[in-house]
Amino acid sequence: VEDAKTAVGVIRYGRDDVVAVLDARTAGRTAGDVIGVGGEIPIVANLEEALPHRPDTLLIGIAPRGGGLPPAWRDVIGRAIGRGLDIVNGLHHELAEDPEFAVPARRAGIAIWDVRRPPDDLRIATAAPHRAGSRTVLTVGSDCNIGKMTAALELQAEAGRRGLSSTFVATGQTGIMIWGEGVPVDRVISDFVAGTIEAPVLAACDRQDWVFVEGQGALFHPAYSGVTLGLLHGVAPDLLVLCHQPTRRRVRGYDLPLPSLSACVAAYEAAAAWRHPAPVVGVALNTYDLAEAEARRAVARAAEETGLPATDPVRFGAGVLLDALGRAGER
Amino acid sequence: VEDAKTAVGVIRYGRDDVVAVLDARTAGRTAGDVIGVGGEIPIVANLEEALPHRPDTLLIGIAPRGGGLPPAWRDVIGRAIGRGLDIVNGLHHELAEDPEFAVPARRAGIAIWDVRRPPDDLRIATAAPHRAGSRTVLTVGSDCNIGKMTAALELQAEAGRRGLSSTFVATGQTGIMIWGEGVPVDRVISDFVAGTIEAPVLAACDRQDWVFVEGQGALFHPAYSGVTLGLLHGVAPDLLVLCHQPTRRRVRGYDLPLPSLSACVAAYEAAAAWRHPAPVVGVALNTYDLAEAEARRAVARAAEETGLPATDPVRFGAGVLLDALGRAGER
Repeated sequence: VEDAKTAVGVIRYGRDDVVAVLDARTAGRTAGDVIGVGGEIPIVANLEEALPHRPDTLLIGIAPRGGGLPPAWRDVIGRAIGRGLDIVNGLHHELAEDPEFAVPARRAGIAIWDVRRPPDDLRIATAAPHRAGSRTVLTVGSDCNIGKMTAALELQAEAGRRGLSSTFVATGQTGIMIWGEGVPVDRVISDFVAGTIEAPVLAACDRQDWVFVEGQGALFHPAYSGVTLGLLHGVAPDLLVLCHQPTRRRVRGYDLPLPSLSACVAAYEAAAAWRHPAPVVGVALNTYDLAEAEARRAVARAAEETGLPATDPVRFGAGVLLDALGRAGER
Repeated sequence: VEDAKTAVGVIRYGRDDVVAVLDARTAGRTAGDVIGVGGEIPIVANLEEALPHRPDTLLIGIAPRGGGLPPAWRDVIGRAIGRGLDIVNGLHHELAEDPEFAVPARRAGIAIWDVRRPPDDLRIATAAPHRAGSRTVLTVGSDCNIGKMTAALELQAEAGRRGLSSTFVATGQTGIMIWGEGVPVDRVISDFVAGTIEAPVLAACDRQDWVFVEGQGALFHPAYSGVTLGLLHGVAPDLLVLCHQPTRRRVRGYDLPLPSLSACVAAYEAAAAWRHPAPVVGVALNTYDLAEAEARRAVARAAEETGLPATDPVRFGAGVLLDALGRAGER
């Protein structure tokens, strides 16, 4: 499941139906069985087995290190274009710029959406203030791939249920696929990261009272910390929600220990204050790999360690986090 | 002078002679008179007035916000190519990719070096340890354009005078122009900043005992802090030198106050420790805009505030900083 972030996100939160999942290793089983969401959606071994389920789009949700296109996928994409499927691509490698795909796609009249393609207008952050009365919330994390997008989407959904004026701002490929727009900050030239996310956040604050922004990476991550800080300072949030997975002990993919939750709180509050002070007001845990009793104990421990409200927003709802944001936002 | 960073750097530290400076506003005067370095090098109003001084290269050292090519410069560059001059370009805009210049340059057999062109191989940081016994020093700053490159180059020069095994790693356009190679980290896609600078630093540590890396931006900068943290974590320095300009009160170009020197020390040490602990061991001041007595007072105040050795490495030499690094490096 840890490696199926995009599939889980798109099945759980996407606007379009998923008719089949392509994965040779688990073919024959169902999405609900293998990744815990999607119920009876079949997992198939290859494109041809997916066709009877009448897909209109091939969504490339793999996330290999570095974001390149694995050679084996060239063939699958070519065949999908040949079958008239649109392509939604989350890799760094832009398929619309790749003649092997761009030429037949144009000829067949199908669309290629490279969701990680950065905006054409590169902006330098202005440090302009947000509309008074708006509240920008950024989800931050102890590591990558730990639940920041999910926490922000659950907050947005809960705010919607409560009838609040609110929106979500996507900053990564899965969030953009789900929401239909956003800024792939990890794909932006480093000088422009803060400026490129600042613009849509300012616009969202003009229109909505609550703006939930998907965080990226972690301040402690040896490869991606720069993305995290650029995003934190470009978003200039008023309030932070800290995301963590209780069973995660080391930085994903590295032999480095994760800091404690209280060290995370201190680091994010210090780094935010370099630009605009923002307290961490709650903890969102990702307990998908724990039994329910264990998950409840993990939530209680996180609340005790940080002195903050904690929950797993998927499992137990985002209500307590939104309550805490509301109280903090009134101050 | 504040806006002539590249001219000052290339004239002071570059390997090639500068025969004339192109600047319409100050034409007729000398470089020594206007920017404080370069003695009798003439400042001329246009390319044609420079030609009698027999240049073989046009170096574009302007640094407009955003790094685009000002339209007025298209004409100058075209004429320079027509006169057979090679082009060295520090802008984000890549001239070798611009048909208006690439085609005539190829025809005329002249070279275009876009120093900010990022490396083609994009790397994710590995967090590999440096060679034991090597010492990596990163210059960090309270703001942009405050003396980080200069401090690192002065440390490298002083290490050379002492016969130490040492090298310099350039990370910005001026440093790359001076040193002939380097990584333009502000031009690298944000996901790859740490990994792209990690590789040359690891290689330098394998060959040299002291590696002086040019810092970029500042943790407090609303637009560029992400570059700063990505660089800090990719370089994973053992020791830091803090750079500051005593007369700078606000973030350059923004209505935001600069933090105190002791707040800078605390922030950089905290942020370094998220990846690899590194103390700030000295302060390098840029006192070009102070009289000598004032400069000495500023140095004394910085030493008192931080409890660290301080100097202006250009004005008073980098000796005390290298002494402090040597003592800290032995621990």
